[in-house]
Parts: sequence; structure tokens; C-alpha cells
Amino acid sequence: MPSEFDLIARYFTRPTRSSSAVQLGVGDDCALIAPPANESLAISTDMLVEGRHFLPGADPESLGHKSLAVNLSDLAAMGARPLGFSLALALPSADEAWLVSFARGLFALADNEQIELIGGDTTRGPLNVCITVFGSVPIDRALRRDGARASDDVWVSGSLGEARLGLEVLTGHLKLSADDTATALQRLHRPIPRVSLGIALRGLASAAIDISDGLIGDLGHILERSALGATIEADLLPIGSALRSQDHQTQHEFALNGGDDYELCFCAPPAQRENVIAAAQQAGVAVTRIGQVTEIPGLRVLDHAGNSLQVHSKSFDHFSKP
Amino acid sequence: MPSEFDLIARYFTRPTRSSSAVQLGVGDDCALIAPPANESLAISTDMLVEGRHFLPGADPESLGHKSLAVNLSDLAAMGARPLGFSLALALPSADEAWLVSFARGLFALADNEQIELIGGDTTRGPLNVCITVFGSVPIDRALRRDGARASDDVWVSGSLGEARLGLEVLTGHLKLSADDTATALQRLHRPIPRVSLGIALRGLASAAIDISDGLIGDLGHILERSALGATIEADLLPIGSALRSQDHQTQHEFALNGGDDYELCFCAPPAQRENVIAAAQQAGVAVTRIGQVTEIPGLRVLDHAGNSLQVHSKSFDHFSKP
Repeated sequence: MPSEFDLIARYFTRPTRSSSAVQLGVGDDCALIAPPANESLAISTDMLVEGRHFLPGADPESLGHKSLAVNLSDLAAMGARPLGFSLALALPSADEAWLVSFARGLFALADNEQIELIGGDTTRGPLNVCITVFGSVPIDRALRRDGARASDDVWVSGSLGEARLGLEVLTGHLKLSADDTATALQRLHRPIPRVSLGIALRGLASAAIDISDGLIGDLGHILERSALGATIEADLLPIGSALRSQDHQTQHEFALNGGDDYELCFCAPPAQRENVIAAAQQAGVAVTRIGQVTEIPGLRVLDHAGNSLQVHSKSFDHFSKP
Repeated sequence: MPSEFDLIARYFTRPTRSSSAVQLGVGDDCALIAPPANESLAISTDMLVEGRHFLPGADPESLGHKSLAVNLSDLAAMGARPLGFSLALALPSADEAWLVSFARGLFALADNEQIELIGGDTTRGPLNVCITVFGSVPIDRALRRDGARASDDVWVSGSLGEARLGLEVLTGHLKLSADDTATALQRLHRPIPRVSLGIALRGLASAAIDISDGLIGDLGHILERSALGATIEADLLPIGSALRSQDHQTQHEFALNGGDDYELCFCAPPAQRENVIAAAQQAGVAVTRIGQVTEIPGLRVLDHAGNSLQVHSKSFDHFSKP
């Protein structure tokens, strides 16, 4: 029985542009996708829930953007080229203004990345956005978490800590200048997935992850999976410009543990330094070398005098066994 | 920061069994899947929300089964062989007894179908289960909705209407014998996706769909996409055994519009009748021929005297233009 929710579903049913990879899009029991010859399909799912991943009343256009961006960031961290995505959406009511705005944010990013909505599901329920993305990558060139080697450099893309800064502003814990507020909120609401960089790092990076939970925790996943440790230098962290007005401790805390940055953290052999920088230039993203992978397990963060900083992160505690 | 929800996530992290298709499972930014040579990946997503797709307080083991079953049913309707699935789960609290039971139902069906959980996401939020399934099918043998031809037979698998009967019992609108109640609730809570039948129908069926919204509405999708009509005979409908105690009108209404049946409705040329029956025998599922595809648009349901039944379905109204 067609209901208002079938109408919503139709709203998200754009004709799928034909591509060699997406063979059948929205409108059948399944979509059909074939990765290019000798490539695998990379798949990731993220579920965003009101009150946990975004505040009640969040701007729907930004939410549309961010829901897809955080998923594309997982493809970027794998070095995969995005092909398409499916959207499952639960909404408390068929609020057309909300839908128009959400779809605008979602499809603007999809069009920018030249990817297709291939299917999904729409239902009444507490607001919940679940996107699954599909990309392609040659199997032996995928940027996995378990490939880091001792003495690899540790790199991060872009800058860190501003999304957390934006959250503090939004929740009234911090006040910034109008410019810095705009910058921080842009970073929080409109993260840019580092897709081109991920692809450019194929064959150069030994391991990669996207920074969604904070650098310490996410680099921790690489080290855990690679059975290694790392030393990073706090003064080398690329601090976001809007964050520089804060004291050093806040800068370090937000850059190390802020979360929601959606930058890439990756490892690469020192012999690849020039190639990494060239790849980043080609992708139009800055990259910064912040430390080194070590045989010694655990993650150490050093200040300018070479002393270990106390980093208060449960992720850190969890993974850095003494 | 590991929270109780990270622990839940770990609960659903079983080591992925190696297979030729699933190259990388749970534990990285993405999973990696490659369909067999010359096959495409078939993908479908369903989101189940408390209060809409299942009643509050629903048995979690059945919910685990059904959440995966309804997705596998979409693969079946495409003639795809299941390979794996991802699970995104929002839960109001980390209720361990609930999780143990949900996982038992989910993994029992996954093991039965020999498929892998390849990734997902777990978060706190109003109960929401979003599963995306992946299967493989040779591109030119996929059972699409748009392939029906005039004079094709219309078939359905298994029997119809008992899931709706179960819902009526559950909500107190109907009373049945203990045996019939058990049968009807089993059909409602533990649908069996017709995976083997879908695969066996490759090259035989011209079009297929799974019956999730009711036969009338779902067959309507095939006819709409194929730009054709159909005539079906009410007396040929395979009525579920527990439903036979009800009057004829209820039998027909539940079989035609009941929903939640997860049987396959498919079309095939009359020349394939023997092959269809042989395929169904091979798959261990009964199939019943219930009517014929016509050039004349619209869907007609005839009684034993050849008179058109009034079928009260918005799907039917929507699609059957006079």
C-alpha cells in the first residue's frame, strides 16, 4: 500500500546513471554491482542516530552531507574508489522540508564524488540514517590496518581537532570569534572525505585508517592490528587554524582525542617520503609527518623536551599495555 | 574510547571464515568482497524498526532470524547466491540477555546459509536493525522484475497468508487452535528465505520478486516494470494450512494482501512448466501456478465462476488503472 513513506522512497529514487560498475540501481529486489576486473568491492556501513552522532534538530542538509561523508571516509582509508551507496532511513514523520534539505546535502556530495544511490529502505521510526558504501580497489593494493612496519613514518592528512572545537562551541562550552566559530562548525558538520588521497596512497602507505574516534584511538587500531607501537611528537601535530587560539593543552587534547576529524592517519616507509608528498599534492591535501612506528609496543606522545605526555584516552589505555 | 557498545560490537565480531569471495571481513575500515568471475554482486538493504516491523518486546532470537531472513529473501528473488552481510544495530541499552538471544537467531540462519558477517556498526539508540546482504549472480541470469512476457505463467512458492494470520493472533483479533497458532506464529517470526529456489530458477523464470508486502502489491511491481497485466485465479492460491479454518474471504484477503510471506512470486514461459517443477523439487519447495501474464494492463483476480473479485489493496488500486 503506498503510504507517505513510499512517496519518500520515491523521493530518493533518482534514475541510476549507467556506469560500467553499477549494472542495476534502485527499483528491483537487489542492486547489481561488478567491480572492475581484478578489483574487489570495498564495503562499509555507518549508522547515525539522533542524540548520539548529531544533536536533535541538526540541520538536515549538513546531516545529509555528513552521513555520506563518514562512509566515504572509510573507503578513503582503504584506498578504494567510490562507486555507489545504499540509504536506509527511519524518520518520525514525512517532513518534506526536512527531506528536501537532507537530500540536497546528500546528493551534492554524491554528485561531487560521481557516485550513485543504488537502493535502500525508508520507514517511519526514530530518526536513524544508515548508509552502506561500495567502492573498488585492487585487492593487493588495499590500505589495510595490519600492514604497518617498524620504522615506518606516521602521517596525518589535513588538520586535527577543529570538529571537537565545533562541538564545544555548539554545546556552549567554548566561545570563539565569528570566523573561528564558522571554521570549526564547518569541520564538524561538513567533513571532506579524503578519497583522492586514499587512492593516491595505494602502493605507498603500508597501513591507513580514518580518524573518526580521535588520532590516539584510531592510530591505536593500526598498531594493535600490526602488533607494533609508535612515538609521535605533539609539536608536529597539524593543529586546525581555529584551534590555535586555545591553550596548548586544549590543542593537544582536541588534536589527539577530538574525534570526527575524518582525516587519514597512515604509515609509510621513510623511503617513500617524497612520493607521499607528491601523492598528497596530486590529491590537493596537506600531509604532515608526526612520528614513527616502533617495535616497542604502546603509543608514546612526546612534548618538545622529549617527555611523555599523559594522554587521557580510554582507547589509549586499552591498547597501550605497559 | 571503548564503551559497553564497543563490547557489543566485539560480540558480533566472529572471525570471518575464509572463502574465495570474502577476502577481508570484520575489523578494518571496509570489508573486501569479490564476486566469482563473470558474476555481479547483488546487494539489498532492509531496516527493521520496533513498533513498525515488529512489536515492542518481540522475542530477540526470532528478530535476529527474521532481520537476516527478509534480506536473504531479496537475494532469493534475484536468483543470487548469498555471500555475506553487514549489520548496523542501534540498541537502547547493552542488554546482554537480549544480545545473546538476538545473535543466536541471527547466526543460526547465517550458518545455515553458510554466509559471513563481514562488518557493521553498533550504537546506542532506539532499537533499529539494518542489515545489508551481498550475494552473487551471473549478470545475464539475474531474476529481475522487468522481464515478464505476455502469456507467461504466474507462480508462487510455498503457501500464503499465514504470517498475516499470525499477526492477527498476536494482536488479539483472531483465535486459533494451539497447533494453528504455532504454525501461524512460526510463519510470522521465522520466515524461510527461498534461496535455493531462486538459484534453481535462473534461466527459467523471466521475472521474480519476493512477497513482502502481499501478493497483489508485489506481483504488481513485476507487471508495472514489465508493462503488462495478469489474471490470477483465487481458487489456485496456495492457502497456508493454518489459514484453512477461516472463511473464504479471509483466506483470499490474507493470501492476496497479507504481507510478510517471503515466498517468491515469479513468471515463466509455459514451455518451462516441467523445468520449473523440477527446479522446485530440487530446491525442496512446492510451487503453484496461479495465473497468467496478459497484454491487457491491470491485475484481475477471478473467482471459481470467472468473476472478478474486488481486491481492496491500495497497491492494487495504484497499479491497476482501468
